Amino acid sequence: MSKSPEEEHLQKALGWAARDTSGILSPFKFSRRENGEDDVTLKVLYCGICHSDLHCVKNEWGITNYPIVPGHEIVGVVTKVGSGVKKFKVGDHVGVGVLVGSCRNCENCKQNLECYCPKMILTYNAVYYDGTRTYGGYSDLLVVNQHFVLKFPDNLPLDAGAPLLCAGITVYSPMIYYGMTEPGKHLGVVGLGGLGHVAVKMGKAFGLKVTVISTSPQKEKEAIEKLGADSFLVSRDPEKMKAALGSIDYIISTVSAVHPLGPLLGLLKTNGKLVQVGLPEKPLELPVFPLAVGRKLVGGSNIGGLKETQEMLDFCAKHNIVADIELIKMDYLNTAMERLSKADVHYRFVIDVANSSL
Amino acid sequence: MSKSPEEEHLQKALGWAARDTSGILSPFKFSRRENGEDDVTLKVLYCGICHSDLHCVKNEWGITNYPIVPGHEIVGVVTKVGSGVKKFKVGDHVGVGVLVGSCRNCENCKQNLECYCPKMILTYNAVYYDGTRTYGGYSDLLVVNQHFVLKFPDNLPLDAGAPLLCAGITVYSPMIYYGMTEPGKHLGVVGLGGLGHVAVKMGKAFGLKVTVISTSPQKEKEAIEKLGADSFLVSRDPEKMKAALGSIDYIISTVSAVHPLGPLLGLLKTNGKLVQVGLPEKPLELPVFPLAVGRKLVGGSNIGGLKETQEMLDFCAKHNIVADIELIKMDYLNTAMERLSKADVHYRFVIDVANSSL
Repeated sequence: MSKSPEEEHLQKALGWAARDTSGILSPFKFSRRENGEDDVTLKVLYCGICHSDLHCVKNEWGITNYPIVPGHEIVGVVTKVGSGVKKFKVGDHVGVGVLVGSCRNCENCKQNLECYCPKMILTYNAVYYDGTRTYGGYSDLLVVNQHFVLKFPDNLPLDAGAPLLCAGITVYSPMIYYGMTEPGKHLGVVGLGGLGHVAVKMGKAFGLKVTVISTSPQKEKEAIEKLGADSFLVSRDPEKMKAALGSIDYIISTVSAVHPLGPLLGLLKTNGKLVQVGLPEKPLELPVFPLAVGRKLVGGSNIGGLKETQEMLDFCAKHNIVADIELIKMDYLNTAMERLSKADVHYRFVIDVANSSL
Repeated sequence: MSKSPEEEHLQKALGWAARDTSGILSPFKFSRRENGEDDVTLKVLYCGICHSDLHCVKNEWGITNYPIVPGHEIVGVVTKVGSGVKKFKVGDHVGVGVLVGSCRNCENCKQNLECYCPKMILTYNAVYYDGTRTYGGYSDLLVVNQHFVLKFPDNLPLDAGAPLLCAGITVYSPMIYYGMTEPGKHLGVVGLGGLGHVAVKMGKAFGLKVTVISTSPQKEKEAIEKLGADSFLVSRDPEKMKAALGSIDYIISTVSAVHPLGPLLGLLKTNGKLVQVGLPEKPLELPVFPLAVGRKLVGGSNIGGLKETQEMLDFCAKHNIVADIELIKMDYLNTAMERLSKADVHYRFVIDVANSSL
């Protein structure tokens, strides 16, 4: 008979878990493996609440194994390092993102694209090499192989920097890969949530003109005055959409609701690129004529490899990019999840784990 | 009152035109402008029959003005050159493709992308600068601004080379733009018609492994033995499709029927690229998860600029790439169109214009 989560390992851990599709989270006693030769143990300080966490606690993607401890935007302080760990020492501030393992041997891993390794191990709701379940950052401590631990830059705030570990890399990586960083070019950001508001800041840091494209006119003031966008386009305003035809070089769509791609493709110039980082559950309608007549493309992207995630953190530190957050305690978690489901957050909840009672 | 097509210009011309949505073509007397300073007049020798011609004579895209003389895969011999023409002389073999004009001044034109100029003028069914209609290559002569005339390489057969001017550049251009030419990589070609069979040959010339992906198992022998493909995948065979998951680097889909993109995306490796050059009238279903988890893209492309079209012709001459054609006389045109509508051609009809009675 398999051991209980509490008895599996030697390091006792406390977190908050959902037990069923209600998604309600409550205190959960479990355990973490002893710190191995290549491992780093960290005390969790902050953990961002990603929209994926919400999908997973409610099993909306059909892949959840309960109990589930979510959380993959984790910032902590190192408490133990294994004998093989040279990059980190006790007391260092570190980050852990979406991945805690990959095969390290496949074509993707060899190119520092661990996020596309077929055997990658997610930070929560996955099975680790030892056969035990992975639990995420809504918890007091984490044990992670050093390869999947990131140096957290000194001048990056620990709380507001945490969401960069998923939201940040999710928009940064496609900007690099698809070549969406040429200064002076025009970036459209569709959807102004956790991902979108970071994309606006990164776009400005790359020297782009940034237009926020949103269904909500009331977001205009904030997009421009607070986030630094250059302009705002209400996607439900046919006249303004028409006036903006062919005016944008790159679009990042963070929208995860089903939406038509045609109007967005229409906004693009020749050679325009639309990267869809929001993940609608159903297929989107892709009209082919606009792709052809403007040599446009629709691309996907999934977080980023560890090397690139470190580069992204360093880029954000250099350009003072953090998420706009609402810092909460763990006992506010269920309320936060409910508010998140209504998009009622500016723009990311971050749990002050170390100062919460678990 | 406007002049009749026969009286508009000084150079008398004979061609075959469709008069209505029946698409039936019959002899048509019209005229071409006198050869201007920057113009080349050519006697048409051969003209390929492109699937677009079929769409247009039947007004299936809703943009046809009758009478219409189709044809944009034109090879001819120069009979007149204007005083400003230095590149061509009487007696040269030349090609004319899909375009006979563009603004020459916009961002696209300045980058040799005349095919994306918002003011480009199509070889037929368009309005030229002088306000008269453009008529295509199903005719005895053509007058074309020298910028839109291509040198036809000496060793390229005039008849079988003609389809390169549309079918050839339509597959060559995206292979260059999207970086689908790295030797040793694996190209999938979906659909084995006029475009597909040229894509197979180009793929091999670039040093790629080429797999033809088709609904028709009976095409396997020809694809491999005659066209030089390395393998053949029946897209309606679920077992073989499953076995081929994640095995292909690039896909060119030439299919213009509505088809699901999901199975094709599944065949691609990480960073795989799917270029859709077939133009379905209705939107295709694009599942976003497969795009994201493999950082895949779906791109469009539309013929190519004049500079690139010349490069393509030279590439084909160097690598002995021509279309496989069925050479016909003009009086077979309506039968050819009917056979084309049933995909009953291997793989391109070319009209032997100079030896037909018009």
